[in-house]
Amino acid sequence: MKYETVTWRNDKVVMLDQRRLPTEEAYVECDGPAQVAEAIRNMTIRGAPAIGVAAAMGIALGAMRLRVKSKGRFREEFEGICRMMMETRPTAVNLSWAVQRMKDVLSGYGEEGLDGLRRALKSEAMAIREADIEVNRQMGQNGKRYIQNGSAILTHCNAGALATAGYGTALGVIRAAHEEGKDLEVYVCETRPQFQGARLTAWELDRDGILVTLITDSMSGYLMSKGLIHLVIVGADRISANGDVANKIGTYSLAVLAKAHGIPFYVAAPLSTFDLSLGTGDEIPIEERDTREVTHPFGRKIAPEGVRVWNPAFDVTPHEYVTAIITERGVAQEPFATSLRGLFS
Amino acid sequence: MKYETVTWRNDKVVMLDQRRLPTEEAYVECDGPAQVAEAIRNMTIRGAPAIGVAAAMGIALGAMRLRVKSKGRFREEFEGICRMMMETRPTAVNLSWAVQRMKDVLSGYGEEGLDGLRRALKSEAMAIREADIEVNRQMGQNGKRYIQNGSAILTHCNAGALATAGYGTALGVIRAAHEEGKDLEVYVCETRPQFQGARLTAWELDRDGILVTLITDSMSGYLMSKGLIHLVIVGADRISANGDVANKIGTYSLAVLAKAHGIPFYVAAPLSTFDLSLGTGDEIPIEERDTREVTHPFGRKIAPEGVRVWNPAFDVTPHEYVTAIITERGVAQEPFATSLRGLFS
Repeated sequence: MKYETVTWRNDKVVMLDQRRLPTEEAYVECDGPAQVAEAIRNMTIRGAPAIGVAAAMGIALGAMRLRVKSKGRFREEFEGICRMMMETRPTAVNLSWAVQRMKDVLSGYGEEGLDGLRRALKSEAMAIREADIEVNRQMGQNGKRYIQNGSAILTHCNAGALATAGYGTALGVIRAAHEEGKDLEVYVCETRPQFQGARLTAWELDRDGILVTLITDSMSGYLMSKGLIHLVIVGADRISANGDVANKIGTYSLAVLAKAHGIPFYVAAPLSTFDLSLGTGDEIPIEERDTREVTHPFGRKIAPEGVRVWNPAFDVTPHEYVTAIITERGVAQEPFATSLRGLFS
Repeated sequence: MKYETVTWRNDKVVMLDQRRLPTEEAYVECDGPAQVAEAIRNMTIRGAPAIGVAAAMGIALGAMRLRVKSKGRFREEFEGICRMMMETRPTAVNLSWAVQRMKDVLSGYGEEGLDGLRRALKSEAMAIREADIEVNRQMGQNGKRYIQNGSAILTHCNAGALATAGYGTALGVIRAAHEEGKDLEVYVCETRPQFQGARLTAWELDRDGILVTLITDSMSGYLMSKGLIHLVIVGADRISANGDVANKIGTYSLAVLAKAHGIPFYVAAPLSTFDLSLGTGDEIPIEERDTREVTHPFGRKIAPEGVRVWNPAFDVTPHEYVTAIITERGVAQEPFATSLRGLFS
């Protein structure tokens, strides 16, 4: 059966509960925007593009549920819902991009009454969702030429159908190469602390019949040194104007290791992941999450009581380590400041 | 209360059960050599020097328990016990070094009767244990000058009191610097798949009042990029004649990352960890362990059924990445082929 990362059903936002994969395929039904926000925060749903889609749907749901009559009150409540979504997670910029699109619907709306506005907001959220899948497919088309027949690919975390409305960014590129009949295999880093590589990427590639081998994050360098990896491809949570890439913690180590081994390092991300207001990756806010993710995987205590922990959820890979960034509109390479400006113009 | 990694009590080999740390401080009593061999295999005890000590003690215990009258039968049974110990784990060369020392007692022994031989074997095992602690302290003295006051040190896995008869190799060097009053802090990689960094190193440093911060293996590169690490120091399981170092999986990635950030990378290991019969690290056998270590941490399933897994327990760091190797007899640096020959002559 096909799974849906996030969808709209019976006026609810329905999400595959990614915390329970791969042992259980269960869905969570969100009845209101606070539930959607909590699902983003607690990582029921994760992945920069998926977070953006979920936030937009959560805002549409909130607009639908708002029991107010005046447009002034509506505006106030709507702002509150947008703020709540924005505060769920700080690093993925797709979140503020999606929220802004919803706000633009409100500002562009005339005096036709609240019901029409609610419908317009729901339409916009659905359009964001549909476009995300389309954009991923286009990235796949633009990126598949970097995967030669017979390639072994290393990826990190989950930049797949589960991280988007469907198809995936980095895994979308892999899917596109697979769909045109290329013989390939994927190594995936388990991705501590939350094991998205083991739980999600291995699961979704396996379901697609793509050969996948799981390793711990610590094995990536040794694997590269054995000549077993031809390219690395990952997703992104935010990319600054100079091409620096914030992505799941561990990405930077992979990029340095790839460079040391002469292995190309690709990033696949939609335009909604770029934040051209930031000059460099140093300005990207990096979320630090609960230390229990490190000390208590699945609730099991693995470290002494009270030990200090550093738990950044993301890191920043400077553009010097990036061979190319694959987007739906084309591929950017050094000098990124110029090539990215080209893509956006 | 002080803990003992491995000791001899009431004619039993008693080990701290490292699989249960840090939640429980429980000891396993081995009544015969097969139990000792199983404890090495299942990692009740681990760490190259500790494995050597445990094997020697297991052999002494086996000699004591042997119910044979003739020296010929004794020899045969003794050989069988040594073989069993040798087959427990393939990478740490301290194992064969210790077994060879026990065999040398047998070969050097005259015709004085089996009881004397049994006593001599027990004495040798105890001497190996005592010498290991002394050797670690000497390594500490030789290595502490590499740790400046105010240093932040990154280490991997556990090369501490728990990996040896006591005091530790890499952690011994850190202890020696701490004991002379240097202000220092240690970052430790949790060390998947078996979490020895989180479970063991954090536990033993914390007990010694040394400031420790736990990270996942994937965070090491990002930590280095922030300028937060001044040196890396690790132990070793086998070192070839040219200075290539086999150590816990993940060590190689750390070494490459350290070099990329201009951070010195030290290895602390006793002479018993060297295998001068091997020209390069390519010849070191690398153990691959049960894939369930990766897919089922603490028995919890985190990956889809039947997924392929690569689970090497060690990797090899080429000597080009090693700033210096600290031994009890002095410190070796490039050219290692020459400097190591000097230490052994």
